Amino acid sequence: MFIGIDLGGTHMRAALVDRRQTILDRRKVATHVETGPEAVRSRLVELCRELAPAARKKGEPVSAIGLGVAGKIDPREGRVIFSPNLLPLNDYPLACELQEQTRIPVYMENDANLFGLGEQWLRADRGIENWLGVTLGTGVGGCLILGGRLWSGDHLGFSAEIGHTVVDPAGPECVCGLKGCLEAHSSARALVHGVAAHIARGELTGGRLFELFSTGALTAEAVYDCAKQGSTLALGLFQRMGWALGLAIGSAFTLLGIRCAIIGGGVSAGWDLFIDPLCESLREHCSMLNPGEMVVQLSERPNEAALLGAARLAQIKTGVDA
Amino acid sequence: MFIGIDLGGTHMRAALVDRRQTILDRRKVATHVETGPEAVRSRLVELCRELAPAARKKGEPVSAIGLGVAGKIDPREGRVIFSPNLLPLNDYPLACELQEQTRIPVYMENDANLFGLGEQWLRADRGIENWLGVTLGTGVGGCLILGGRLWSGDHLGFSAEIGHTVVDPAGPECVCGLKGCLEAHSSARALVHGVAAHIARGELTGGRLFELFSTGALTAEAVYDCAKQGSTLALGLFQRMGWALGLAIGSAFTLLGIRCAIIGGGVSAGWDLFIDPLCESLREHCSMLNPGEMVVQLSERPNEAALLGAARLAQIKTGVDA
Repeated sequence: MFIGIDLGGTHMRAALVDRRQTILDRRKVATHVETGPEAVRSRLVELCRELAPAARKKGEPVSAIGLGVAGKIDPREGRVIFSPNLLPLNDYPLACELQEQTRIPVYMENDANLFGLGEQWLRADRGIENWLGVTLGTGVGGCLILGGRLWSGDHLGFSAEIGHTVVDPAGPECVCGLKGCLEAHSSARALVHGVAAHIARGELTGGRLFELFSTGALTAEAVYDCAKQGSTLALGLFQRMGWALGLAIGSAFTLLGIRCAIIGGGVSAGWDLFIDPLCESLREHCSMLNPGEMVVQLSERPNEAALLGAARLAQIKTGVDA
Repeated sequence: MFIGIDLGGTHMRAALVDRRQTILDRRKVATHVETGPEAVRSRLVELCRELAPAARKKGEPVSAIGLGVAGKIDPREGRVIFSPNLLPLNDYPLACELQEQTRIPVYMENDANLFGLGEQWLRADRGIENWLGVTLGTGVGGCLILGGRLWSGDHLGFSAEIGHTVVDPAGPECVCGLKGCLEAHSSARALVHGVAAHIARGELTGGRLFELFSTGALTAEAVYDCAKQGSTLALGLFQRMGWALGLAIGSAFTLLGIRCAIIGGGVSAGWDLFIDPLCESLREHCSMLNPGEMVVQLSERPNEAALLGAARLAQIKTGVDA
């Protein structure tokens, strides 16, 4: 029995998972990272304690905890190096502290990498050896499964950060400091910023998007709803999202000599609005493959793959199934 | 004893190489691909025959031939799938035919991948496990060494084709049909086309570059010479070359979680003119690494690494040293 945790900028989620990919119990609370690292750690400890009874009921103890965090992290030291969405956690030895309090081994990884582990676990019977994962959330994360295993590169604290590859050097600014990253086109934040940019340029002076933005209530979901109701601006932002994803995935296929990508994360719920422009852009930006050779799929479980991957990490690290 | 062949659009080169990386004899002749695949194959057979005496003198037979060809190829069938610079060879079973004529096993690979094998052989004592190779020639090739081995992706006939990743969607057209590829900024052809574009726009109406272009005698070397003599246009083209290389390498580092790149090929002779803008652009386009972490090096032997890599492929394939 394992606990998987997905610690995001807005929510923290935890699940008790068995070896057959079954989620036996789960919790979700607000992260409130502004309360500081100790308070976040306390909430994580509390979540783990709440999941313990379900494990006891099965007569199996929790063997290990897998912890996914967005950002650049040091898995070996269990430390957050830099997380733009969880700034107060920077340089905090979160895994060590959690392990000390729960007395259960804690293993930490980047959340998009855990999406990769989870998705590969869910698709274990399908034998796709090499694929690129893209997670669409507040930002854009990525993972690479190469030879059936999670690729960690030179163990520099990051890998497969496709969100911060440049798709258009003349494009919008990104939180990472660069210009024209994939994330600046294809994240929840990019949708909201896209509306803001139109308002700043005086191109949007009324209507639902304008009102929501003015009251600070504009979300990616609201941009999606407005697009479904026919807003040209909102539809254009989802088209831009798909265009940038197609370009970035096409260049990644060309660079890696692979042909499969899997898309997850909360914003992948907008799939119906961005998949057509994505596929069109992919055809336009990958000269090495025929359109029929390229595969872009939605995650098996867009909202759970990272959580399952966190449990899977714990399972792999304790040697139960390497 | 092994023969390595590097078959390019302009020249074919062959070398007799022993297990200690020594080149015992070598040949270089014009490819003249317009004479057709059989004529090209005959010239390759002739080169191999000319190298035989040097092997006999050492008392060792030639065990195998490694053959590098620019383009998309099928190593298992020994067939050129598509090579823009060697169009008459498309779909021709070059390796099989060469093997039949020489009665020596022939193994075929993409020329930039062989640059990777050769460079990794030359640097065997330095233990760089993961690196990206970029070869600057008529076009731009690439290779990936991951975990110390040549990465072949999904065995689709190409991998690491960084030359056809898009660095600027508003950039110049590429021979592959896309717009704004690295190759359209950073190859010998891009230097010549860059001059041509200035002339077409009426921005260059005289001087050495104009004269060379008008007489059909403009080469990358001439653009280099003019840059060294202070031509602003020529210097700008090398700056653009470096800018695009920095952006593409930065995005590749971000995607792969690695930090080393090695640059080879004939046009890497312009290193002094493009390395500074390359490094500046790399710093500007990679937010995941500190400038001090990133390593970009010139090949140990820019003009020989691919040839040595071809011999190395033959060596690996015959199981002499896997």
